[in-house]
Amino acid sequence: MKTPISTSKITTPTDREIHIERVFNAPRERVWRAFTNPKLIAQWWGRGNKLVIKRMEVERGGHWRFIEHSPNGVHGFEGRYREVTPPERLALTFEWDGMPGHVAVNTMTLEDLGDGRTKVVTPSLFHTTEERDGMLRSGMEQGVNQRYAALDALLAKPA
Amino acid sequence: MKTPISTSKITTPTDREIHIERVFNAPRERVWRAFTNPKLIAQWWGRGNKLVIKRMEVERGGHWRFIEHSPNGVHGFEGRYREVTPPERLALTFEWDGMPGHVAVNTMTLEDLGDGRTKVVTPSLFHTTEERDGMLRSGMEQGVNQRYAALDALLAKPA
Repeated sequence: MKTPISTSKITTPTDREIHIERVFNAPRERVWRAFTNPKLIAQWWGRGNKLVIKRMEVERGGHWRFIEHSPNGVHGFEGRYREVTPPERLALTFEWDGMPGHVAVNTMTLEDLGDGRTKVVTPSLFHTTEERDGMLRSGMEQGVNQRYAALDALLAKPA
Repeated sequence: MKTPISTSKITTPTDREIHIERVFNAPRERVWRAFTNPKLIAQWWGRGNKLVIKRMEVERGGHWRFIEHSPNGVHGFEGRYREVTPPERLALTFEWDGMPGHVAVNTMTLEDLGDGRTKVVTPSLFHTTEERDGMLRSGMEQGVNQRYAALDALLAKPA
């Protein structure tokens, strides 16, 4: 079965937020596992690049740290889990090593669409408009689309 | 010599900020070292409680993590250095384990008052008003005053 092509809807509802919505062609439990199981996230989060999971403690207060080995360099990302409520809500902080101390809070909600698909809604809140705009200029939109396309591909495989 | 009694001036200039000003009876270089040298910070940051410095990498992007063993429990604090410009500016993120993923950005400026004293000005910026108010309700003011009184005592000793 071919997965329908899908793109993320990225908007800026307030001056410190980026809002991302994306529909995945898989049941909510499966999408939840793809975001919270280290073996699964290693298969898509790097969007084709080698991804090293240094730390991934999926519980309130746990830390995560991923290293992406991309053609243009090695990039570290990290943060901490703020809320873990399977299979519907995952809130975490997000920080890129290139801008240390610039922290976004991503509050992800997984919505069961009732037809075997799942809508993932992720508002990201930044401390300032400048930090939000810096994230937008960093090529975030392309990065998100590449990551989610890789997640589509993973979800298209037999569970 | 007795150190003059000093208290912190704590204000809320905007709905997401706490602003702290405090004068120390010591030259700027010495106050800078007290904030950036692990052996020195271990002597005052715990305000009399045992403080374990798990990590303290004082450079842009470096991490810090302190464990305070207080009579009412063991408390972890951590964050990351965002700017380290000796001896005048130290910006870092601040997170208490009790509220993981709730991150404040503290941008500390050390001002040489020209008379052997140093004014430390620290605006803290939170993601939301609720998080700022939660920090105020947590007894932060007392904690800051106790920490800074312990720093006074350290600075009163011969360098």
